[in-house]
Amino acid sequence: MGEALRQGQLSVRQLAEQFLKRIADAEGQIHAWAAVDASGALQEAQRLDEEAQRGHWRGPLHGIPIGIKDIIDVFDLPTGCGSQRWANSYARQDAPIVRQLRQAGAVILGKTVTTPYAYLDPPPTCNPWQTERTPGGSSSGSAAAVAAGMVPLALGSQTGGSVIRPAAYCGIWALKPTFGQLSTRGILPLAPSLDHVGLMAGHLEDLQILWSALRPAPMGIPPLLESPGRLLLTLPEYLQDPRLEPVMHRAFKQWQQQLEQAGWQWLETPLPIPLVEIRRHHAVILAVEAAAFHHGRWQRHPDDYPPKITQLIRDGLNHSAWSYHEARQHLRQARREIDAWLLRAGGWLALPATPGTPPPRDTTGDPAFQSPWSYLGLPVVTFPIAWTSDGLPLAVQLIGPRWQEEALLSLAQQLSQTVPCPPRRLPV
Amino acid sequence: MGEALRQGQLSVRQLAEQFLKRIADAEGQIHAWAAVDASGALQEAQRLDEEAQRGHWRGPLHGIPIGIKDIIDVFDLPTGCGSQRWANSYARQDAPIVRQLRQAGAVILGKTVTTPYAYLDPPPTCNPWQTERTPGGSSSGSAAAVAAGMVPLALGSQTGGSVIRPAAYCGIWALKPTFGQLSTRGILPLAPSLDHVGLMAGHLEDLQILWSALRPAPMGIPPLLESPGRLLLTLPEYLQDPRLEPVMHRAFKQWQQQLEQAGWQWLETPLPIPLVEIRRHHAVILAVEAAAFHHGRWQRHPDDYPPKITQLIRDGLNHSAWSYHEARQHLRQARREIDAWLLRAGGWLALPATPGTPPPRDTTGDPAFQSPWSYLGLPVVTFPIAWTSDGLPLAVQLIGPRWQEEALLSLAQQLSQTVPCPPRRLPV
Repeated sequence: MGEALRQGQLSVRQLAEQFLKRIADAEGQIHAWAAVDASGALQEAQRLDEEAQRGHWRGPLHGIPIGIKDIIDVFDLPTGCGSQRWANSYARQDAPIVRQLRQAGAVILGKTVTTPYAYLDPPPTCNPWQTERTPGGSSSGSAAAVAAGMVPLALGSQTGGSVIRPAAYCGIWALKPTFGQLSTRGILPLAPSLDHVGLMAGHLEDLQILWSALRPAPMGIPPLLESPGRLLLTLPEYLQDPRLEPVMHRAFKQWQQQLEQAGWQWLETPLPIPLVEIRRHHAVILAVEAAAFHHGRWQRHPDDYPPKITQLIRDGLNHSAWSYHEARQHLRQARREIDAWLLRAGGWLALPATPGTPPPRDTTGDPAFQSPWSYLGLPVVTFPIAWTSDGLPLAVQLIGPRWQEEALLSLAQQLSQTVPCPPRRLPV
Repeated sequence: MGEALRQGQLSVRQLAEQFLKRIADAEGQIHAWAAVDASGALQEAQRLDEEAQRGHWRGPLHGIPIGIKDIIDVFDLPTGCGSQRWANSYARQDAPIVRQLRQAGAVILGKTVTTPYAYLDPPPTCNPWQTERTPGGSSSGSAAAVAAGMVPLALGSQTGGSVIRPAAYCGIWALKPTFGQLSTRGILPLAPSLDHVGLMAGHLEDLQILWSALRPAPMGIPPLLESPGRLLLTLPEYLQDPRLEPVMHRAFKQWQQQLEQAGWQWLETPLPIPLVEIRRHHAVILAVEAAAFHHGRWQRHPDDYPPKITQLIRDGLNHSAWSYHEARQHLRQARREIDAWLLRAGGWLALPATPGTPPPRDTTGDPAFQSPWSYLGLPVVTFPIAWTSDGLPLAVQLIGPRWQEEALLSLAQQLSQTVPCPPRRLPV
């Protein structure tokens, strides 16, 4: 698309109109959007077309449409956060990450549905591959909109598994960068010690373009594993997890074998930090920090809080300061340890992204397979490797050392080229 | 009130209920409130009563009700900014200054009416002394609510004359501190180079208490004029201004004579910087910075912008970068010069706060007498000195050197004790 725009075969306005048309056609079945800003998008497209005609080209995002999760402030649109009470709370300014997107020339089509307050209560959004299934959450609308071809790119956010899970369930690509890489200012917090911005795209190349526009200026960190070796690590904790569904187990094993045949080595080795500890402390930090932010509003407007976030706030209010302190200490220590371990191992982690296929829509699925990497703050890429016989995607996640997003994306490129996943036609 | 609360003659809840009752009785005539948060206020009052029963006393603001101008973010209430489109835009957190108030124990009764976007278009609010007259603006609701006895304290903001003018028109006390003394984060900007938070109260002692709770920790600046001498400066530019109404001229002259008889010296001397330059550059900075913030929204929603702010934005878009740059340089230079001049003069400025009595409600009055002190960033205190025969207040403003708020308030105390202004009974 960027090429076609640059060569004048297509105008930014025409491209925006095509996606707005697709939204108009499919939204009734998918419910991916909290707000579509057609007039704002077309106005911006006009401006970008005029710029291009004057020979000014902002870069590969110039004119490319994008959707923004509805907990991220976008100037002059409401930041609804999946709350009825906030449905008309207009943002007075862009979040810094949105400002970056605009400067790079992206065209914001609107705000994508989030679960209430970016937690686990199910949203109205449907999985485009089977509409009675969940798209995952909490970045439900972002993943579903990209999967349904309503927009080529989207922003999400992740505190447990809110980017990687919906991307995996919807069969698209996503990157959750290292903790702290992208600014979370102007974004509704869930738990600031764990909150990440995440990037979604239909294709790897698009994800790379989006990342290039948003990543911070290089800080002189040596690219420790710049050219990844041919060693992949995987975790017995995942492959022996009783939640792992046979269909995912088979697909993952087959993917491993195909890579092995292409010359990749596998090492199955446990994490140096028990997953059970990670999950316990993750739960404490999440609950305490969410309660700190929400409890005042929740006490005044309990009707604006559905059951799961209500329970989270209750839990958060019940934890002792002592257990929170312990969890924060564990988090700091674990983030240091995992780096040393990954660098020593000299490999990259490759794991099933979810235990299996997306469940029905009364849940957004189990975050257990994604949340450890939010806790550890490591960069994660997910992409589909296979389809079930009834047309649902199965995805893996690759995890690399801190700050190594570029190398992680290039590893993902190698693996996905070595074992390509056949494309599918959308049923809706 | 604080004493009565502390001695247990009155509970915080009872006090809040008294003011809420007064609001319920008078609001139909005054229209001072954008939102009254009775349940939130009573809940907070309950908490403060419980604290007091446990022997914890937060200080002189413990339990004292306050109103907050509706451009300042108060958690879980809309920040309406006088805009229809923003009427349901709930704040996700308190502005820092509101957080300070809560920590000091103030009870927020609600949000007070602002003119649209804190500029000159008239609000629905009425002057409590004569309801067909303007209360002034843009902090219209704050001044009217304090004057009408609906709340003892209020926060406002000033970019031209938006605190001092409404306080003067409503016959109450106000302090506009030095530029930069109080944080403007979480407050809708009008022109960041000129925006100030301002404090309003029915009585000097209340204003002093409010200032003590909000002022930054002392930075070791020597109190240059700590014990003010007996010299007062006034400006021929003000006393010979053709806009000065005879009734104000007479009242001011009489006040001067009474002080003279009590041993105060007067020196009438022109400002070292021409007022006409100050007003011209003030207008440029105001228009350009307001346009920078508002023009995107204004282009999309012109119907949400009444005539005067529309004209301001238009003006701002038409100014050259060159004239803005010149104005900013003049501002910096003028702020340095005025300090040196005031310190050399060894006196304090005393001036009519407005050219005369509040005009009818199709305007908020002329800011020309207040805006130079926003431009120069000096601290200003206003208070009433007399009443017209038809019951309207006439007020003066005292202006002191930068950072000298305490000394300025103590000067105001001396002057108002030397020449007391007789109290009046409200007609409504």
